[in-house]
Amino acid sequence: MNIKFLKNSEPNFSENLKGLLDFDSSNSEMIIETTHNILLAVKEKGDEALLEFSKKFDDLDFTNAAELEISEADINEAFERISLEQKGALNESAQRIFEYHTKQKMESWSYEDDEGSMFGQKITPLDRVGLYVPGGKAAYPSSVLMNAIPAKVAGVDELIMVVPTPKGERNDLVLAAAKIAGVDRIFSIGGAQAIGALAYGTETIPKVDKIVGPGNAYVAEAKRKVFGLVGIDMIAGPSEILIISDKNSNPDWIAMDLFSQAEHDELAQSILICDDEGFFTRVKKSINNLVETMPRKDIIKTSLENRGIFILVNNLDEAAKVSNLIAPEHLELAVDQPKLLLDKIKHAGAVFIGRNTCEAVGDYCAGPNHVLPTSGTARFSSPLGVYDFQKKSSLIELSENSASRLGKVASILARGEGLFAHGLSAEYRIKK
Amino acid sequence: MNIKFLKNSEPNFSENLKGLLDFDSSNSEMIIETTHNILLAVKEKGDEALLEFSKKFDDLDFTNAAELEISEADINEAFERISLEQKGALNESAQRIFEYHTKQKMESWSYEDDEGSMFGQKITPLDRVGLYVPGGKAAYPSSVLMNAIPAKVAGVDELIMVVPTPKGERNDLVLAAAKIAGVDRIFSIGGAQAIGALAYGTETIPKVDKIVGPGNAYVAEAKRKVFGLVGIDMIAGPSEILIISDKNSNPDWIAMDLFSQAEHDELAQSILICDDEGFFTRVKKSINNLVETMPRKDIIKTSLENRGIFILVNNLDEAAKVSNLIAPEHLELAVDQPKLLLDKIKHAGAVFIGRNTCEAVGDYCAGPNHVLPTSGTARFSSPLGVYDFQKKSSLIELSENSASRLGKVASILARGEGLFAHGLSAEYRIKK
Repeated sequence: MNIKFLKNSEPNFSENLKGLLDFDSSNSEMIIETTHNILLAVKEKGDEALLEFSKKFDDLDFTNAAELEISEADINEAFERISLEQKGALNESAQRIFEYHTKQKMESWSYEDDEGSMFGQKITPLDRVGLYVPGGKAAYPSSVLMNAIPAKVAGVDELIMVVPTPKGERNDLVLAAAKIAGVDRIFSIGGAQAIGALAYGTETIPKVDKIVGPGNAYVAEAKRKVFGLVGIDMIAGPSEILIISDKNSNPDWIAMDLFSQAEHDELAQSILICDDEGFFTRVKKSINNLVETMPRKDIIKTSLENRGIFILVNNLDEAAKVSNLIAPEHLELAVDQPKLLLDKIKHAGAVFIGRNTCEAVGDYCAGPNHVLPTSGTARFSSPLGVYDFQKKSSLIELSENSASRLGKVASILARGEGLFAHGLSAEYRIKK
Repeated sequence: MNIKFLKNSEPNFSENLKGLLDFDSSNSEMIIETTHNILLAVKEKGDEALLEFSKKFDDLDFTNAAELEISEADINEAFERISLEQKGALNESAQRIFEYHTKQKMESWSYEDDEGSMFGQKITPLDRVGLYVPGGKAAYPSSVLMNAIPAKVAGVDELIMVVPTPKGERNDLVLAAAKIAGVDRIFSIGGAQAIGALAYGTETIPKVDKIVGPGNAYVAEAKRKVFGLVGIDMIAGPSEILIISDKNSNPDWIAMDLFSQAEHDELAQSILICDDEGFFTRVKKSINNLVETMPRKDIIKTSLENRGIFILVNNLDEAAKVSNLIAPEHLELAVDQPKLLLDKIKHAGAVFIGRNTCEAVGDYCAGPNHVLPTSGTARFSSPLGVYDFQKKSSLIELSENSASRLGKVASILARGEGLFAHGLSAEYRIKK
């Protein structure tokens, strides 16, 4: 297999790297227009539009929008159908995700100053959240856990899940995960119409305050459109892994870790940085040996050949610098002294420290979230967390003395800005 | 003056209220297209495009993009030109904003579990942030302090400010505030072209990781467009105040507090909720007496007549419920026992507790941020804060035992999702 090879000591390294990282994230005019029309129809016709789209896109012939809701009995039956082993794994995973995320919960705080005034921040959960879950092949029960549990830890009162069920086909593992995670209601609807229903509300589907969860290009475009009316999580790009390895890692392990990213889809990006040129040869050999045994080998090959990158550096210090340029979604530190390397890492969604720690375990059950900033957005954004389902209100309570003293300060600044009523409002509180 | 009057006991109250809160936030096709073209030009032609737009929009005839930068000497001179009183007020305000925001700073954390594995969250500041500051009439030094100081508290290394200076006209107070707040570089450029320059970078203006600060419709549209490539703060709608008052407040104070919101612009919204019908009459009398003395009386009248609302409720419990429906940007609790009422408030940008605490003091110098979620977005978003300039990386370090035990769990779930390489990657770490 032919994987691109760069050396960070070469001239134009940054530009070449940038070229290999870039991808076209823009939606076609057709997607933009179709999404616009679907959202408009849902906004104007509510349930009626949902029934039409369900017929058209999912071949579901409902006469009543209430049929879109998946009943508790159906969810329980799905849960009973999955294997004991799967139930155990989902439960253990949910428990670990719950424990980690509990540590993220923000608490209200306040303090009093020496003039007797109080300042603080009140933390409250969102009232109602929508969770989009893709249907078909990309139906991932782990995503249900990772999106739903932080919302529940935050104290979100009502969590509404939407999932397309083309021709009525439901995924038992997805429904079981929703039950375990504490999802409150589930509707079998997907696409831009599901985002519209959650953002505007219909007779049957309640309007939510925020929508999270991954989806196809129509879903992403719809989320972008309703942003502002409701909150949304980040719009994710293709998934990436960056592995920094020294020459002492097992090349089979590194190859398989690269595969675990590449198998997601053709645009997924797997990058290996090493300070030893010979190690790349060994990893390449492992790749060639192992890839033919992979059920998703075609996707893996396309992804590695088109988007994979090997980068040779002189030392691990330089590896950290290159990693900070990339700001990867997933970063594995497969080196002898990973903690020393970690200190130099500034931008990454999640860091998997040491050779024992593979991304795959983090994807499912280590505890931290697997919804992470992609495509370099770790430069300015964070993993999905409890904090995404809580919000803050500033608190200010001025004593008479503070109001009087600060009233004078505010008055000077207000008049400097030409805001006379602001000035007077503050001046009324100045003690005579 | 004619101000709309609702009773929450009336049928259709919610629908009527919703109708009065709504405003059209969509940008015209013309704005969308112009912005698109400006961004494209900046992306493709860099500095050359900036010089063209500066000539076209700001009448600035620069031949070299370096001239766009405002020199340190010029900033220092601006600082020297403002009055001693203004320097003192800006400094006191900056100091208080700094102190409050210091309490918001997030710290990294980690813990070890009983299998010897480590889990945590590493907090790092953004590297470089862009701050948009409007020029002309809406040039607010207080906004510079409120946007810049949290970034500096977070530890942002480089803070780049952009501000339009039509015909070269600079605002001394704005430049002085930037100096006090620790802004690193200032460029005299505005509009969508400034947003493009910060998002893509040009030869002269460095690319940033996040853009904050208010602007006109072109700026808002440009921020929406570059969202994803860089982070942005919320796109603000018109500003609002909601005052919950009992009958014991001074009606002049309440009138002036309503004015302080209404004077911002015609779309600003001022709402008063009270449990006493007679109090509305007294406030109306104050409004009519006071409004003619206001320099911005025309704006105030238009705003109050078109967008102002008086709402009569039966008791303060109901007032809290109505307030939670509105999720106001600013909420004043001008009642005898404001702390009791505060307990019932779920959604608000900032709460001003007690009759002494007017919004105007909060706008300038109380300490908490004045950049707050507008138009009901307090249901899902928060005041601008230090947390907007920090980001999180998840940390996972598995012991051999954890990797082995959790490898089995991950393997079951990965195979359930059809992700074979994920499964094998985890299985490699299972101890034989």
